Parts: sequence; C-alpha cells; structure tokens
Amino acid sequence: MKNFKVITSRENSLIKLVCSLQASNKARKESGLFVIEGLRICKDALENSIRFDKLIISNTAYEKHFNDIELFSDNSNECYKIPDNLFKKISDTSSPQGIIALAEIPDSTAVEIDSKGRYIALENLSDPTNLGAVSRTAEALGVSGIILSSKGCDPYSPKCIRASMGTLLRMPVIILDNMASRLKESPLKTFACVVDKDADDIKTVDFKDGSVVIIGNEANGISEELKSVADRCITIKMAGRAESLNAAVAAAISIWEMMK
Amino acid sequence: MKNFKVITSRENSLIKLVCSLQASNKARKESGLFVIEGLRICKDALENSIRFDKLIISNTAYEKHFNDIELFSDNSNECYKIPDNLFKKISDTSSPQGIIALAEIPDSTAVEIDSKGRYIALENLSDPTNLGAVSRTAEALGVSGIILSSKGCDPYSPKCIRASMGTLLRMPVIILDNMASRLKESPLKTFACVVDKDADDIKTVDFKDGSVVIIGNEANGISEELKSVADRCITIKMAGRAESLNAAVAAAISIWEMMK
Repeated sequence: MKNFKVITSRENSLIKLVCSLQASNKARKESGLFVIEGLRICKDALENSIRFDKLIISNTAYEKHFNDIELFSDNSNECYKIPDNLFKKISDTSSPQGIIALAEIPDSTAVEIDSKGRYIALENLSDPTNLGAVSRTAEALGVSGIILSSKGCDPYSPKCIRASMGTLLRMPVIILDNMASRLKESPLKTFACVVDKDADDIKTVDFKDGSVVIIGNEANGISEELKSVADRCITIKMAGRAESLNAAVAAAISIWEMMK
Repeated sequence: MKNFKVITSRENSLIKLVCSLQASNKARKESGLFVIEGLRICKDALENSIRFDKLIISNTAYEKHFNDIELFSDNSNECYKIPDNLFKKISDTSSPQGIIALAEIPDSTAVEIDSKGRYIALENLSDPTNLGAVSRTAEALGVSGIILSSKGCDPYSPKCIRASMGTLLRMPVIILDNMASRLKESPLKTFACVVDKDADDIKTVDFKDGSVVIIGNEANGISEELKSVADRCITIKMAGRAESLNAAVAAAISIWEMMK
C-alpha cells in the first residue's frame, strides 16, 4: 500500500480542484482531468488501464475496501485520505462510497476511425443521461466507437460516466470540432437518422462495415449542415401521434438495426 | 371565457393541494388527482378528452396564452388566476409557463386487455424518466398499451408525464397489483426479457398478435415469480463486457422486434 497523505481542510487546493472538476466542464477542459467516483467505476477504470493521477479515499472507505484500495493506490501517482464529512463535500452522489480517482481525459484525437467499423455519432446531444445510455447500448451491441460533436454534453462529466455504468471509460470515444466536414471526409458511409416520412425506412437499409449512424440533438435533431453531407437520410417509421423518440431510444434502435 | 377566481395567499388550500400533488405519490393516490403542467401537455390532455377539475393560470400566462386558456377554461370545472411569484411556488419546473391543470387519475382498472393486442409490461420500474421514454417508444411504434406493476414509479408523477412528452395521457395504461398472477391468467403470450445467455435470442422470436414483453426493474430485473409464469424467456444478446442495457433501451429494442 502506498503512503496516503492526510487532508482535513476544505480550503486545501486538491479539495477545491475536485469540487470544480465535479461541477464544471470548463474546469475539466482546463486541467485535462476528470473524476472517477465509486468502487465499481474505479475498478472498471483500473481494468481498462486508466492511470489515476490522484486517489482520494474517505477514512471509512479506507478500512472497508482495503484490498481494492491497495490495488487502486498502486495505480495512482498520489494518494490521499480524508475525513468522511469532508468527502461528502467533494462527492457528486448523495450516498458517497468514499472513493474518488482523478485521471487524465483521454486524447480523443488519438483514436483513429476504423474504415471497416460501425459507429454511432451523436451531434450536440445535450443530456448526459442519454449519452450514458447510448454508450451502454453501443458497448452491449458491439459498436466500434462513439463519435461526438464537441458542442454536445461532456462525456467526462460525473453524471455521464455514471449513466454509462463505466462503459464510456471502455468505449473508443472520438470528439470532433466540425462533425459535418470530418464525417464527410471520413471513409465511413454516413446515415443521418431523421424524423421525416420521406426518408428511407431504417428496416430497408442494408448496413455494411464502414458505417456510421448519426443521431441529432434532443430538441432540434440533426443540423442542416450535417444532413446535407450525409450519404443517406434514414428514419424510424412512427405510428400514432408521436413526434419523435427519445434520443437514446432512437440511437438504440439504429444501433440494433446497424449491428444485426 | 369562464370566470377566474383570484388566489393570492400561499396558505390557500388549493395552493397547498397542488404542491402536495407535485411532490407526493401518496397525495395523488389519496385525492385521485394529478397535475398537468405546461401549455403543450395541457393541449395534449385536452385533445385526448381529459377533463380538467381545476385550471390554475399565472397572471402573465393569462395574457400571453389567452386563446389557449379560453379553450382550457371551457374544459375546466373551476378556474383560478394567481400572481406569477405564487405560481413559481406550485410549479415543478424551473421556468414555469404559468399553466397548471388538475385532472382525475384515469381508472386503470377500466382498461381491458385486448387479446389480440401487443403490449409492453414494466415490472417495478423505478425511474420516471425511463417510464416516460418507454411510453414515447410504445406510442411511436404502435403498441396497444402499457402494463405496469403497482409497485413501480407513479406514471402520474410530473417527472414521468414530462419525460413521456404527454404520451402517457394518450396511451392505455393498465396498473396491476399482482402482475405475475394477472398476466398468467391473461389471454396474452408473455415474453420475459432477461439477461441470460441461455434464454432465446429475441431476433429468433416470431411475435404474434396477443403478446406482451416484460421488462424488469433497473437494478434487479424481473422477479423470479414473474419469470416462472412467463411463457418464454427471451434475451437481447450482448457483446463485450456489458452487463445489461438501460431499461428504456431494452424496452425499445423489445418493442421494435415485437412490432416488426
């Protein structure tokens, strides 16, 4: 077991850093760090070879999860032990487990698009719960990776990682500043999933290797710019008076059809 | 336009009633009323012939949405106008539109199961956002109705109705006290959707009229009791290390396959 430094003050700079990383996309971008909270997600991260920059453990968790914490500490640059009531201040959950790791945000520009892959792309998705659910679906159904526009919700927010059940730490995630032009020049065939009765019924599409289905923003759908560069517009035919599906549901049905 | 009574006091019994209906399942059960909040969902309710017991409008909304409110008032037993700052107290949203209707909770025992229908059943679903998403999917894909166990989250909570985009006000909803025995004696063929590699791959199932797919609780899946009475256990095959899908996603894929 590594040596654990003790912090007791709320004014400590690391405590303040964790609070800002929990709350703010800007703080995550500026520091290049994000928070991994909870026993299970830390285990997931460890198994996925994510190095911990800092490990912060509550006194109670230190005793209760000694064996796991020993493994975590071997994977950490620095380790800290703090009182339970201080841990509550830095936790993003109402019943904290007392385990937080800080890790470097993976460099999404280092992830290459596989020209034979099958991808799901999300343009400006705003709800972290939806992004987390899409990531779970994508992993479960064997998608090659998730392509995100940089203006969508942050995949490294605590809410997003929690909703993804840790799958966002395992899936290849590619974040694009200009999704329309980047997908246009990519080797993938692009399918824009739209709400449009004249678009092709997704059931009739024969997806091949080297495909990406694009799902748009919850309120506004896919931008005109991205639609205009897509190889094909496809749709999930709807009955009744429904106007659209939940974005995570539309993504799930699209992924299901693409991976069949 | 009906006559609108004016309320200005927070201590008014109707104001207190609305607050309790927004917050508490118990209050909804005891009074038999639920809250319909917002212009669009009130319009949905009106189009679906849901009678309003009370209509409560903020002063600003009264001016801004005069024509709609005239229609709503004709559909209401009693109408009230209240100051904007008082409306904020009774609203469940951070940016209230100033429109709330109270309506009677539909009698779900009056809804008959159609022996030729195709249903989705949710056992003890706990997350209102999931229930709302399933309702949207069910309506969009043409499901006959939604069957809920009485121990799950309340479909008439504000969060649930909002997540359903009003579809819960249009879909037939059947709430069962004892789902296992009631489904066993129903004319429907029951398919329990489970996480079990030995269950039948959902892709191989030939769903016919008179079917119901059952989705379980987010954390615990389907109860042993319900599994034991199901005609068939089916599964969505998963790749990789995923342990399960989000419940709304599992429901969406199941509905998609059932309705094809």
